[in-house]
Amino acid sequence: MVTIAASRRVRRTPFSSGVEAAGVKAYTVYNHMLLPTAFESIEADYRHLKTDVQIWDVSVERQVSIKGPDALRLMRQISPRDMSKMAGDQCYYVPTVDHNGGMLNDPVAIKLADDHYWLSLADGDLLQWALGLAVAQGFDVDIEEPDVSPLAIQGPKSDELMARVFGEEVRNIRFFRYKKLKFEGQSFVVARSGWSKQGGFEIYVEGEDYGMPLWNALFAAGAELNVRAGCPNLIERIEGGLLSYGADMRRDDTPYECGLGRFCNSPDMYFGRNAMARQAKYGPDKMIRAIAIEGEIETCGSVWPLFAGGAYVGQVTSATWSPDFNTNVAIGMVARSHWNAGTRLEVDTSNGMRTAIVQEKFWI
Amino acid sequence: MVTIAASRRVRRTPFSSGVEAAGVKAYTVYNHMLLPTAFESIEADYRHLKTDVQIWDVSVERQVSIKGPDALRLMRQISPRDMSKMAGDQCYYVPTVDHNGGMLNDPVAIKLADDHYWLSLADGDLLQWALGLAVAQGFDVDIEEPDVSPLAIQGPKSDELMARVFGEEVRNIRFFRYKKLKFEGQSFVVARSGWSKQGGFEIYVEGEDYGMPLWNALFAAGAELNVRAGCPNLIERIEGGLLSYGADMRRDDTPYECGLGRFCNSPDMYFGRNAMARQAKYGPDKMIRAIAIEGEIETCGSVWPLFAGGAYVGQVTSATWSPDFNTNVAIGMVARSHWNAGTRLEVDTSNGMRTAIVQEKFWI
Repeated sequence: MVTIAASRRVRRTPFSSGVEAAGVKAYTVYNHMLLPTAFESIEADYRHLKTDVQIWDVSVERQVSIKGPDALRLMRQISPRDMSKMAGDQCYYVPTVDHNGGMLNDPVAIKLADDHYWLSLADGDLLQWALGLAVAQGFDVDIEEPDVSPLAIQGPKSDELMARVFGEEVRNIRFFRYKKLKFEGQSFVVARSGWSKQGGFEIYVEGEDYGMPLWNALFAAGAELNVRAGCPNLIERIEGGLLSYGADMRRDDTPYECGLGRFCNSPDMYFGRNAMARQAKYGPDKMIRAIAIEGEIETCGSVWPLFAGGAYVGQVTSATWSPDFNTNVAIGMVARSHWNAGTRLEVDTSNGMRTAIVQEKFWI
Repeated sequence: MVTIAASRRVRRTPFSSGVEAAGVKAYTVYNHMLLPTAFESIEADYRHLKTDVQIWDVSVERQVSIKGPDALRLMRQISPRDMSKMAGDQCYYVPTVDHNGGMLNDPVAIKLADDHYWLSLADGDLLQWALGLAVAQGFDVDIEEPDVSPLAIQGPKSDELMARVFGEEVRNIRFFRYKKLKFEGQSFVVARSGWSKQGGFEIYVEGEDYGMPLWNALFAAGAELNVRAGCPNLIERIEGGLLSYGADMRRDDTPYECGLGRFCNSPDMYFGRNAMARQAKYGPDKMIRAIAIEGEIETCGSVWPLFAGGAYVGQVTSATWSPDFNTNVAIGMVARSHWNAGTRLEVDTSNGMRTAIVQEKFWI
């Protein structure tokens, strides 16, 4: 098997030594940084994630810090979501688009202060989009990548583990809200969020030197909870319909096409709004759908076209076997003409043609 | 060893099947795409590169296409180089900076027409910077990533191999100039360029379906030239002082600090010009230097700080053993006070403290 060559360009994280000690079996590269993709095995990790609690090194969710008098002004230009309603302790999922409505990223925006936001990124240098807009308009705002590395705690025992390290207060954090909580005298943003449907938190670890002490404290506190190192799980995230930017959606796709139209409620003249006016009113011509695939397949590693009677009607972009639902679960983009639940299509997989069935909803 | 997980997000290239058949041993990820880093071994590949000819899948050098009435206007804003002197068949190395002069990328700009440029990227989504500037100013220009995948032919026998496939005309292509030459009836940009000091060409393969036919034709034509699959070589590129964006330079560094001040000759008010005025006049306070390291080291995979009498004076960002020069060759950023050739420093490597000696120039 091929391996990843070491370089400063592909960055290690503050938790890499812990990840390696825990026996990471596969990595990917995401935002110029290492992201684990398997420990025991994807299926064993999946089973454990649904029953216990895992610690995920998601440092690759790099932050874009937007700070200064014009921070909100810039956020109003780049966010399809209504920024006026954002509470001081809130996190917003923000599908970020270009002037044509094409997806550039889908970060989580965190409001740190009225004049300070973080955008917690999917894979891509969205910093450069924000910077280009700000510089061209002469905005008074600093746009930087701070030394912040998120650590996710995911799984049904997340509250119990987090309470042992950060105190009972964590239990009162609402979904997509955060509290600033202390570890070793240092305050961190702790949000109830994370890229699974099993519940949990993300700790925005500010200052790389806190990385391994926090990692070790969480493992020590979680021994009797059967805590393990984990990572975003391919099976679980497809079952749950969690979209991966770069795989399931790209600049070719709008938020409406990605099923994210509900996040486009801003009254402001954000970039891309006019271009999406027709879709806002009448809906898009293609949309992300949950898709079941019959027969044996490999995990999807490229685009698999979808056909109806030989005619192209869309594509599958993520797919794998789900032990819990006893079917192949997939995410795809399907033309309006064929997106109704129950529609039977053919999909050209790496193992040949298979039957694909559009689902009413994801497996949650 | 850890492996790279398959996904559409980490893209294969039009040449991936050829790369795999040729026995790729290691990959990295660069611009959301696979880049080979070793075939036989880094040292065997290095030896062969210097004596024969190699075919490199450098599809990861993704293009930003800037096309439209305002293309030149945008290029004048983002290029520190004087665009008025660029010939119609020319390629320009363009250290691209933000409003503070911080390096955002170091692409090669290719002039396709007066209103159409490609930026052939180092690792990073520079498209988003260009797009942000253009959209905020309402420029009439399309900014896209086209279906273009460069294939590099590198090594002393490059002219001979290329002449067999593209005709004798390739021999007349001057350094950093291009001709449009035909393969199977399709015209491609063929430039005399590439990320080695061994000479050669880059073919900008437009249309992924041409990838493997061209790959196969080059291998068939080069059999008696001992042609092999290769890739940018860590040893050779450090010897030659070829900087890697993300490793040797980042947004913390200006072109002057990277020893690229000669490329900042534009009379235009490009973004970053004012911020770099002092450095343009008096020079920077730190600069990239060739550095030899004594004793045994591993290949540098992170930042190695440099000290003089215990005080921090810079850092090494790339380093490895050079068989041809019988020393460890390195690239580092050194403070003005300690950058003179012959200066002896200490470097904190992954194997402990070593002696580092600033060189007059790279090993070319």
